[in-house]
Amino acid sequence: MKQEGEMFVVACRPMAAVSPVSANSQSQQPFPTPSPFSFSDASARLSTRPPVYLSNLILRFLALVFSFVSALSLAASSSKKGSPRPSSFADYSELLYCFIASVLVFVYSAFQLFKGIWDIAQRGILISDMFSDYMSFILDQVAGYLLISSSSVAIVSIQQIDKTASILKAVIISAIVSFVTFLVIVICTLLSGYKLCKRIIW
Amino acid sequence: MKQEGEMFVVACRPMAAVSPVSANSQSQQPFPTPSPFSFSDASARLSTRPPVYLSNLILRFLALVFSFVSALSLAASSSKKGSPRPSSFADYSELLYCFIASVLVFVYSAFQLFKGIWDIAQRGILISDMFSDYMSFILDQVAGYLLISSSSVAIVSIQQIDKTASILKAVIISAIVSFVTFLVIVICTLLSGYKLCKRIIW
Repeated sequence: MKQEGEMFVVACRPMAAVSPVSANSQSQQPFPTPSPFSFSDASARLSTRPPVYLSNLILRFLALVFSFVSALSLAASSSKKGSPRPSSFADYSELLYCFIASVLVFVYSAFQLFKGIWDIAQRGILISDMFSDYMSFILDQVAGYLLISSSSVAIVSIQQIDKTASILKAVIISAIVSFVTFLVIVICTLLSGYKLCKRIIW
Repeated sequence: MKQEGEMFVVACRPMAAVSPVSANSQSQQPFPTPSPFSFSDASARLSTRPPVYLSNLILRFLALVFSFVSALSLAASSSKKGSPRPSSFADYSELLYCFIASVLVFVYSAFQLFKGIWDIAQRGILISDMFSDYMSFILDQVAGYLLISSSSVAIVSIQQIDKTASILKAVIISAIVSFVTFLVIVICTLLSGYKLCKRIIW
């Protein structure tokens, strides 16, 4: 009802009065009825969507790489044999938690990256936009809290690990990279929260 | 420009078509020019604001109480003398971090509660609504991440503390209550994020 009301007002005004922001927002919502804007809308979507999608894809890709490095640094260090003390991350429950958190964020980022590329290639076939926005918002929040929790635990566990253990350097790298992943996910959370708010309000 | 456009459409329709949600949203925005809605708006604000404010105040009050309990349980346990081992939370850097995080969230919740009561008593004098929305959103996010980080660290430190230490029970209580505070702050974050989005978009 309200969407149609807005559209009527826009149609009555001269085109110079339509700001690019409101044009963007209208191009992202499905029109329930055929409108005079729907033909220009299809071309407008192609030109306006990629920059937003591209920044989202870059952030997802960064999260993917960082979470992979975080998990890999723990996994690779535990394969070094020869030390008399146990030096696998699986011997410390805190490090196992960090490893699982990194792997979960890696899988989630890979899924989001796949979905983003799929959406650009052929729009709206994988999952619906509405469900995707809700899911992204909730899972981004969960991923952010999981990462800050796991990197805090990793930092605490650095103090406990024997200074001569071969795993120490790997844990430090993992904690730092995990925190960087957290920062990337926070930006993703803000973006997906903004998208969800636009969907709820409009 | 867009706000005025919406208002024109609303004014042209019969009043039955105006949904309560859009009436709420319009009552919260300042009108740059005198409008036929401004008289009914003042009374509408009085009737629509308190429920939203009340839920926010209840959440802030809960966060205040829980963060106080979390900090108190650590502080009170450290005053028990007589144990040969060090049993003050200040001897463990992890517990000191948890204590500081709880105190910071307590101070922040007290400020938000004070501001909420002040806003109901006499509107918009303490700080501007715009600045308040941005500040609440950012600080709620920071408080949430701080609390999940500190409660994760507290849970890890439970494993390290000597089972016979008198502080153990206090740390368990503090970790649980800190996690509950985190859940309350997450709801506050969602509310303040929604408020901020409405402000940005409208």
